[in-house]
Amino acid sequence: MTRTAFFISDGTGITAESLGRSLLAQFENVEIRMVTKPYIDSVEKAMNLVEVINGTAVHDGEKPIIIDTIVDSAIRDVIRQAEGFKVDIFSTFLEPLEQELATRSSYSVGRTHAIGQDEVYMDRIHSVHFALDNDDGARTHQYDKADVILVGVSRCGKTPTSLYLALQFGVRAANYPLTEDDLDEDGVLKLPKALAPHRHKLFGLTIDPRRLAAIRHERRPNSRYSSMDQCMQEVGQAEGLYRQLHIPFIDTTRFSVEEISTRMIAEMGLTRRFSPR
Amino acid sequence: MTRTAFFISDGTGITAESLGRSLLAQFENVEIRMVTKPYIDSVEKAMNLVEVINGTAVHDGEKPIIIDTIVDSAIRDVIRQAEGFKVDIFSTFLEPLEQELATRSSYSVGRTHAIGQDEVYMDRIHSVHFALDNDDGARTHQYDKADVILVGVSRCGKTPTSLYLALQFGVRAANYPLTEDDLDEDGVLKLPKALAPHRHKLFGLTIDPRRLAAIRHERRPNSRYSSMDQCMQEVGQAEGLYRQLHIPFIDTTRFSVEEISTRMIAEMGLTRRFSPR
Repeated sequence: MTRTAFFISDGTGITAESLGRSLLAQFENVEIRMVTKPYIDSVEKAMNLVEVINGTAVHDGEKPIIIDTIVDSAIRDVIRQAEGFKVDIFSTFLEPLEQELATRSSYSVGRTHAIGQDEVYMDRIHSVHFALDNDDGARTHQYDKADVILVGVSRCGKTPTSLYLALQFGVRAANYPLTEDDLDEDGVLKLPKALAPHRHKLFGLTIDPRRLAAIRHERRPNSRYSSMDQCMQEVGQAEGLYRQLHIPFIDTTRFSVEEISTRMIAEMGLTRRFSPR
Repeated sequence: MTRTAFFISDGTGITAESLGRSLLAQFENVEIRMVTKPYIDSVEKAMNLVEVINGTAVHDGEKPIIIDTIVDSAIRDVIRQAEGFKVDIFSTFLEPLEQELATRSSYSVGRTHAIGQDEVYMDRIHSVHFALDNDDGARTHQYDKADVILVGVSRCGKTPTSLYLALQFGVRAANYPLTEDDLDEDGVLKLPKALAPHRHKLFGLTIDPRRLAAIRHERRPNSRYSSMDQCMQEVGQAEGLYRQLHIPFIDTTRFSVEEISTRMIAEMGLTRRFSPR
């Protein structure tokens, strides 16, 4: 028996969905179909959605779960009439907050996004282009402007992490690949010269060699580059370098890009130029 | 008088912060300093944080607002002892949900992230590299694999939007610049040939010419490229093309990357390969 959960928002739905998923993830035994309904920003849209929800209730034979972050009370009142189990964040918490802050809330739609939107936009553009211009060691002369320089072997996750840091937090992240070019005569990996003046900005990524081989295999099947031997050797050398030079590092196999980024920000004490929306 | 709000999480803090910001944005008259505390995943860390919160209460002369999404009840119990006004999402909603779903919740930390982490990782890698490989019209032979092809003038926001779609939703987004190369003999913008077979996948971006001029000015100051005349003309031609060919489009001046992406997904009926965390 499957139940349905609706994540409903007058905006992007990102907050409602991420909160809803966190709550429902606690119920692993229940099969729940999750549906996000963003931009429910008029009474009419809300009325149409109520019909959809009520239809789902009949179809499922169970009340749908309704998790919403709608601000406008007229729209919320419509949603409240739907057949469902309601997790109503705003009416639950806004009223107590009004009392605590001794002020009325503005109940205006999309208030979060209006604040400083222009600076956020420019910071994002800058940070994304910084990440792209300084991807994969393409340039090294802007490292004095970098907040962090990610290092790691090819395809360990440097690029997605740099871009996430840029888009979500405005952090200027360069990244530099560790390759065989930097092995010394004894086959030991040395810190590449371009990175030496910026050691305090370095953050290492590592990865399970099996996953690395799988990722590389899709790019260059059956090559030395994607062989288990090569992947194991490269990962081992990179981790050796991190330990030797006390470069903090994280395993991208075990953590999501969100976790890697937020842990890095915490550990390196980086300043976010703006906040996740 | 400034009050402090703490967004506390045993994970990345992204959900707690985005929910907290949405709630507090309703109180525009109150000056609130916002502090995110991620990875409060042990009783010891929670006890240290309680001291910080209590110190802040004394300093501010007002109770801090505490918004948390901590799952573990032992850690949550510690946080509950802090001097503050508590918005306790999980204890407020988990218990009623347990009753509704007639099952106990697992209260396990970071449950959301464990589910399908591996596929999400691979999908992200693919989507990000797809966006990079197909950025700015660099390649056109993979357009049959694209979910959407963003079009627009240089620096209107195509690249950040493509990357956000890739990272956050696993949507494969290519992007193609509209330039003077595609003007006909009468100076009218034509649909570039590479895009003609993919008209149903096109989504247009437009931008306020003043902001475009400002963005371009930082790249090439005092050039024809960054002049108001040029920007107005290019934007006008692009919008003309969208209207003539009924290409849906959105103004990046008015909306955040999150809003553009989620509106586009809704409007084009795109399938997300995974969900925001």
